[in-house]
Amino acid sequence: MNAVLAEHTIHARGAATSATAIVLLGTGVVGGALLKLLNTDAARSLRLVGAANSRRQQTDPQRLARRGLRDQLNQHGAPRDNASLLAALDASEAPTKVIVDATASAMLAARHAEWLAHGYHVVTANKALAGGELSGWRALQAALNGSGRYGDSATVGAGLPVLSTLRRLRACGDHLLALEGVFSGSLSWLFNQYDGSRPFSELLREARRLGYTEPDPRSDLSGEDVARKLLILARNAGFSLGSDEVQVEGLVPEALRSLDADTFLARLGELDAPLAARHAEAASRGCVLRFLARLNQRGLARVGLAEVPLTHPAARLYGTDNQFALTTTRYNTQPLVIQGPGAGPEVTAQALLGDVLALG
Amino acid sequence: MNAVLAEHTIHARGAATSATAIVLLGTGVVGGALLKLLNTDAARSLRLVGAANSRRQQTDPQRLARRGLRDQLNQHGAPRDNASLLAALDASEAPTKVIVDATASAMLAARHAEWLAHGYHVVTANKALAGGELSGWRALQAALNGSGRYGDSATVGAGLPVLSTLRRLRACGDHLLALEGVFSGSLSWLFNQYDGSRPFSELLREARRLGYTEPDPRSDLSGEDVARKLLILARNAGFSLGSDEVQVEGLVPEALRSLDADTFLARLGELDAPLAARHAEAASRGCVLRFLARLNQRGLARVGLAEVPLTHPAARLYGTDNQFALTTTRYNTQPLVIQGPGAGPEVTAQALLGDVLALG
Ligand SMILES: NC(=O)c1ccc[n+]([C@@H]2O[C@H](COP(=O)([O-])OP(=O)(O)OC[C@H]3O[C@@H](n4cnc5c(N)ncnc54)[C@H](OP(=O)(O)O)[C@@H]3O)[C@@H](O)[C@H]2O)c1
Ligand SMILES: NC(=O)c1ccc[n+]([C@@H]2O[C@H](COP(=O)([O-])OP(=O)(O)OC[C@H]3O[C@@H](n4cnc5c(N)ncnc54)[C@H](OP(=O)(O)O)[C@@H]3O)[C@@H](O)[C@H]2O)c1
Repeated sequence: MNAVLAEHTIHARGAATSATAIVLLGTGVVGGALLKLLNTDAARSLRLVGAANSRRQQTDPQRLARRGLRDQLNQHGAPRDNASLLAALDASEAPTKVIVDATASAMLAARHAEWLAHGYHVVTANKALAGGELSGWRALQAALNGSGRYGDSATVGAGLPVLSTLRRLRACGDHLLALEGVFSGSLSWLFNQYDGSRPFSELLREARRLGYTEPDPRSDLSGEDVARKLLILARNAGFSLGSDEVQVEGLVPEALRSLDADTFLARLGELDAPLAARHAEAASRGCVLRFLARLNQRGLARVGLAEVPLTHPAARLYGTDNQFALTTTRYNTQPLVIQGPGAGPEVTAQALLGDVLALG
Repeated sequence: MNAVLAEHTIHARGAATSATAIVLLGTGVVGGALLKLLNTDAARSLRLVGAANSRRQQTDPQRLARRGLRDQLNQHGAPRDNASLLAALDASEAPTKVIVDATASAMLAARHAEWLAHGYHVVTANKALAGGELSGWRALQAALNGSGRYGDSATVGAGLPVLSTLRRLRACGDHLLALEGVFSGSLSWLFNQYDGSRPFSELLREARRLGYTEPDPRSDLSGEDVARKLLILARNAGFSLGSDEVQVEGLVPEALRSLDADTFLARLGELDAPLAARHAEAASRGCVLRFLARLNQRGLARVGLAEVPLTHPAARLYGTDNQFALTTTRYNTQPLVIQGPGAGPEVTAQALLGDVLALG
């Protein structure tokens, strides 16, 4: 389909059947993938009325309907201004109005509650509100007493049906006794591979080459992103944890934390000896190492490297899979386990789309 | 809480806040567990206005509110009559009216579409409609164009979030490429245990003693219940399969199929030699046996014993766990896997409750 045809199709379709108007914040990896999904038949009831990156935004229907929106934004976009994005939503006749946050901006996350309170729905891949300060979480809960709904499937497991399941069980009066799992694709891959035969730093370089880690792998190794996901899960399970109440034991030694990225990458080898020792110790007990997130029924939340026996569900993980094991009052002999790809632009964008469609 | 107090509490609570009126069909294992859940705080917005077993029914609010309803039904119940159960729903002021089917009755399942068409919601553990004749499935789809909604979480995996996930992916335009798994708790347990060291018949007797199989284990071994679940999943994935289009290779040899139950149980040993041979063959290739249900992207549906390598997700199952592995256009490197207890009165009843609450 060429650009003109695409424009025509979307425009005609949108005009005829749009039930839901969307503003998209963030046109990076995830936002870009969502823009592609918005051009598919599954999104025929949706209409994009605004899109923004960190510097520019677009609300012109003709331009929004064209392919190559991400590039156009920088050439033809107006300066960033949330008010005029909201005005574009208000101007739409679609009965359902949704703000989709595909950024990692704490500044935008801080607005979610306000938008919800104004009756907009918010669908987000941005963990900064629900996984941030407790006050933000509380503001979110208060805002959810109104008509605005919050779609957060993409914030944990990139749309694996974890949060929805947790909430459903809770609504039925089932209580979480334990939650355990591997919540990071890169850390899953690293420890699924790591058997002591190759130095950890070599695996880490490979993971980085494969795009499994952030450009500065300390973002992954610190465990902070895992901690945010654990916070979101814990809070949804009814534990009002503060952001400092997750015990995080990251993998970056003190000495390497404040280096610039290049120096850090040059000194990766310093990770090897301590990890090799821990691996050997675990192996001597018939165990393997996994980077686990754990929550118990008293709300104790921990993130870090753990030894698990070979019969443990996390010992049987492959690739970059995430895993979430829920033990509850009613799932108490064996946990309910949800496992699979927990990152990646396409599944994350699909999680956003699924949340948007569920509002319609 | 004694019976009088319980009655009072439920009555007062129901009168004040009931948003949803329920008629319960079936007060057996699952229906009985649901009655217990209806007495919990999670069900405070629900009000039971009718209940029935195969012979008797009750619509008197005082009697319905009392504990021991299952016994009372036979002493004080009126003869079965669906019309007066529906009248009790109609008489309720609750805006949401739900018929919960916790039977295995094909006769009742045949009414689901009609009830939906009349605007009642139907929540079911009964697989006989969606897992029965294709004409029934089509009637169901037609009825779902109206306002009535169909809660079917309990029909597959006893509420594991499989059907909801499948439908959500499909709504986003994601296509099922393969579905594979272990859909029966008893068959899961049998082959998770079976390593050739004990005769299969001995394990089967143990499974029966533990309550994992039906009193006549041929119901489990035939694979027919697994086939019904596979049909429900396949149809929800968009394959309009007829009930004869699932290839079922059951475990009961021809010669044992038409015996009475006692004779069958006395001749269980005849299962042993053929299974031991298949097990040895699989082991010689480094594989194990699993009773799998499989669907491919052309809609080919098969149920039966299969050899899987030790790296296969089904090789790593424990206890009576069910497993559902979905490979889709977007979950294509590794499947999305949902695993856990897939039977049992409490989780099944909770699945019904969750579906009812989701309607409110
Ligand atoms: N990637 C995944 O697999 C994955 C999975 C689950 C969740 N997530 C989450 O999804 C979010 C996005 O991830 P990503 O990988 O797409 O990141 P990314 O590629 O860095 O994209 C971020 C986008 O946000 C934009 N942005 C930043 N501040 C903004 C603002 N104030 N207003 C409007 N736009 C703003 C950026 O604009 P510029 O283009 O101008 O820089 C960029 O387009 C993050 O919260 C991430 O944690 C990602
Ligand atoms: N048990 C599980 O773990 C599980 C899990 C998932 C799904 N399910 C499904 O849930 C359903 C119920 O299973 P169950 O284990 O509870 O079976 P059950 O113990 O045999 O109970 C069946 C109930 O249905 C009643 N019944 C039969 N025909 C009826 C009719 N025409 N009108 C009203 N009631 C009628 C029976 O009445 P009487 O008491 O008079 O016989 C009985 O109370 C089945 O479809 C099963 O496949 C069960």
